[in-house]
Amino acid sequence: MDLHEPLNMTMLCDFYELTMGNGYFDHGLKDRITYFDMFFRKVPDGGGVAIAAGLEQVIDYINNLHFSEEDIEYLRSRKLFKEEFLEYLRTFRFTGDIWAVPEGTPVFPREPLLTVRAPAIEAQLIETYVLLQLNHQSLIATKANRVCRAAEGRTVLEFGSRRAQGSGGAIVGARAAYIGGCAGTACTISDQLYRVPAGGTMAHSWVQMFDSEYEAFKAYCETYPTNATLLADTYDSLHSGVPNAIRVFDEVLRPQGITSCGIRFDSGDIAYLTKKARKMLDDAGWPGCKITVSNSLDERLIKGLLDQGAQIDAFGVGERLITAKSEPVFGGVYKLCAIEREDGTVVPKIKISENVGKITNPHYKRVYRFYGRDTGMAEADYITVYDEVVDDTQPLEICDPDATWKKKLMTNFVAKELQVPIFLGGKQVYTSPTLPEIKQYCKEQIATLWPEVLRFDNPHNYYVDLSYKLLGIKMDLLNKGRP
Amino acid sequence: MDLHEPLNMTMLCDFYELTMGNGYFDHGLKDRITYFDMFFRKVPDGGGVAIAAGLEQVIDYINNLHFSEEDIEYLRSRKLFKEEFLEYLRTFRFTGDIWAVPEGTPVFPREPLLTVRAPAIEAQLIETYVLLQLNHQSLIATKANRVCRAAEGRTVLEFGSRRAQGSGGAIVGARAAYIGGCAGTACTISDQLYRVPAGGTMAHSWVQMFDSEYEAFKAYCETYPTNATLLADTYDSLHSGVPNAIRVFDEVLRPQGITSCGIRFDSGDIAYLTKKARKMLDDAGWPGCKITVSNSLDERLIKGLLDQGAQIDAFGVGERLITAKSEPVFGGVYKLCAIEREDGTVVPKIKISENVGKITNPHYKRVYRFYGRDTGMAEADYITVYDEVVDDTQPLEICDPDATWKKKLMTNFVAKELQVPIFLGGKQVYTSPTLPEIKQYCKEQIATLWPEVLRFDNPHNYYVDLSYKLLGIKMDLLNKGRP
Repeated sequence: MDLHEPLNMTMLCDFYELTMGNGYFDHGLKDRITYFDMFFRKVPDGGGVAIAAGLEQVIDYINNLHFSEEDIEYLRSRKLFKEEFLEYLRTFRFTGDIWAVPEGTPVFPREPLLTVRAPAIEAQLIETYVLLQLNHQSLIATKANRVCRAAEGRTVLEFGSRRAQGSGGAIVGARAAYIGGCAGTACTISDQLYRVPAGGTMAHSWVQMFDSEYEAFKAYCETYPTNATLLADTYDSLHSGVPNAIRVFDEVLRPQGITSCGIRFDSGDIAYLTKKARKMLDDAGWPGCKITVSNSLDERLIKGLLDQGAQIDAFGVGERLITAKSEPVFGGVYKLCAIEREDGTVVPKIKISENVGKITNPHYKRVYRFYGRDTGMAEADYITVYDEVVDDTQPLEICDPDATWKKKLMTNFVAKELQVPIFLGGKQVYTSPTLPEIKQYCKEQIATLWPEVLRFDNPHNYYVDLSYKLLGIKMDLLNKGRP
Repeated sequence: MDLHEPLNMTMLCDFYELTMGNGYFDHGLKDRITYFDMFFRKVPDGGGVAIAAGLEQVIDYINNLHFSEEDIEYLRSRKLFKEEFLEYLRTFRFTGDIWAVPEGTPVFPREPLLTVRAPAIEAQLIETYVLLQLNHQSLIATKANRVCRAAEGRTVLEFGSRRAQGSGGAIVGARAAYIGGCAGTACTISDQLYRVPAGGTMAHSWVQMFDSEYEAFKAYCETYPTNATLLADTYDSLHSGVPNAIRVFDEVLRPQGITSCGIRFDSGDIAYLTKKARKMLDDAGWPGCKITVSNSLDERLIKGLLDQGAQIDAFGVGERLITAKSEPVFGGVYKLCAIEREDGTVVPKIKISENVGKITNPHYKRVYRFYGRDTGMAEADYITVYDEVVDDTQPLEICDPDATWKKKLMTNFVAKELQVPIFLGGKQVYTSPTLPEIKQYCKEQIATLWPEVLRFDNPHNYYVDLSYKLLGIKMDLLNKGRP
């Protein structure tokens, strides 16, 4: 249960979902079965791959979807909606189907991460919240994964609550960062709610509270001898902070036989300070003292520090992770791709646009990932019409949907469907894995990607191809143009 | 009441607030009176002024501050905290004083927006949430103000919920955008909770749901004849969207005598499309048809469109506003500035840093804004020690705290204290104005700033000066160096 937003997120919808809903109701379209895809067009930061996250919160939302009397009263006060529609909302529940890729899955532009089949009003109403959760958490999981890959196996801790964009930004942001690879968070409630390991020791105020830095460090080590990471940059890192830390470790920890401890730098030239401090600590007999650094870090700064030989055991990454500062928008969209006639025929729908990148892939579809049968590596994703069969025992020619002359013959591969059923007939049929399982799954799936796809700059463009059948339908609709 | 997070935000704190709290408790410091300032160091986007926002949510948080049995059980499970401390948390409440600048106030770097005087544990614990709310809402209010200034009086609507960073990002983000100048939002729940006017009409899916664009537009106008803004870019804006809109306005609205209506473009070349569309609408006898545009807009793109003569009545601004995309972090910090001895003496505290910009202004302080007595314009802000008296009937020399040779003689001015009491002895003594009042106050206060301060690029650096007494204390502490 998502304790920080337990009430009623039903009203966290764009107002036009409601005006459209009332309009569908008015025009006899409310029960028309529709298909919507959630997909994105571009990986943030020019990256080659994104991480899907946020599904568990979408599931909670769908299960709790309902309008309270207060909600209906508010809507009535707007004087736009028919009384029959407001009456209908009184018993409104989600009755449709949802398929989605599991959280932690590496995903690529223009493939559906989540597909909804539901009566028009229901499918329309959930648009805003579904997008909000999947966009936000996928954004942060993707950024965290980049930061963690830059840290090359070192610990990365999420420290950004105070700079997060609202409470959800902090709370589920820490959850998404953990999925993407962070070892833990500073955000206490994310541990309490989601079991994202939370930790932390002291701020500068602790050091300032005492008459001297030495007394502050000593007091801390006395209270927390086994959890002593001392913030060493309040006054003068190398001339005061590190010597005082060593003195206190010697006086308080050594007599107890404790060899694990830590210092943290939150300012100054981190490469220089950590190299000097490492030597001072080693010379003083504290090789087990870990050095943590923070101060507006991100994947590029971390890479730069490691390239310069900085001596760092753990990174605290704050504002640039929790807001995905370098590109704080995950541009997922939610588009109608088909409607169903009363006889069950699925009619594909397309959105044409003067911006070519905004043209959608029509129809009710399936998405497959092709792994090399011998290598286990992901080679391409493949989108088909819902009723096509993919036979991975035979060679299969796939082609680029934009540059159709670029063809590739897949051989010796295994096809795995990416989406799994989440809701069928309004009933939840999927149980979310635990958060550590999601994190582990993400790590394993990232390992199936070639390094060329994972490169930060100018990564290889992973193939997301359409079946010839789907491509044909798309081209027909484009050539037909406006209805 | 902040319905979307009514439960217990007490645990939305960095874990180190709790380890420090337990440590203060352990070392007899829990009742030591401390002073903390919340301030920021830099206006986002290189701007000259920021807008303070988020105080109302801080007030709700402080009033609700308490640890539930579940919270204490969770903390006990961490095996770090003394039983006496956990017992103490059971009856923990905020008992201190808080002063803050009212929401909507234009604010500048390094002046305290909020000051806390409270026992150490209390003042420490609220750090994370106070920063989170003030940082987030000030960020969005500041960005919204820039966007609205770029729109030069045209309507700006906040459309970004689906790309917001979490539910709070959307819900209070819309609130902050309204404070900064937006006329309304697409986010329904922000209207229900905060009375930010919410509106909206249709998405592309509405158009696609019907057999033709004409039928879709006709159906919409039939249901909403007085609220008909038709999305005109689903297939072909100028050859299909606008002609179909005109046809439907003629067929459905004109016979009813309705002359107000609208079209919206969400893609394509907005400058070109709006100029062409304006002419088509005017020629067809629809001069009252408003043109709304959206599509990843921000203050720079809006300025560019207007410079090119685009014919726009309203802007829908989404992801770049709700995430403050160009600089999504408002870097507010919360720093110990003084402690109080048992005899009531206030002892100033400073944080020194190798990064000069991270050095704090010590002491319990007051902040004044000096307005020209004749012009009413804001000329400088002035920070004093708490017990100084500012006499605005006499000339006053102020000096730049970094470049102390830069002096300015203030004459003929009125001094107004910026912070007002919010809590005294744990009791709320301030009542938030209504949201429209805050928005109006912001508008009026922005009008007291010279255009040079409001310029987007290389704005004039507004003076935030220290009194000679405060400057002297700061220099003494810096020269004394580390304790």
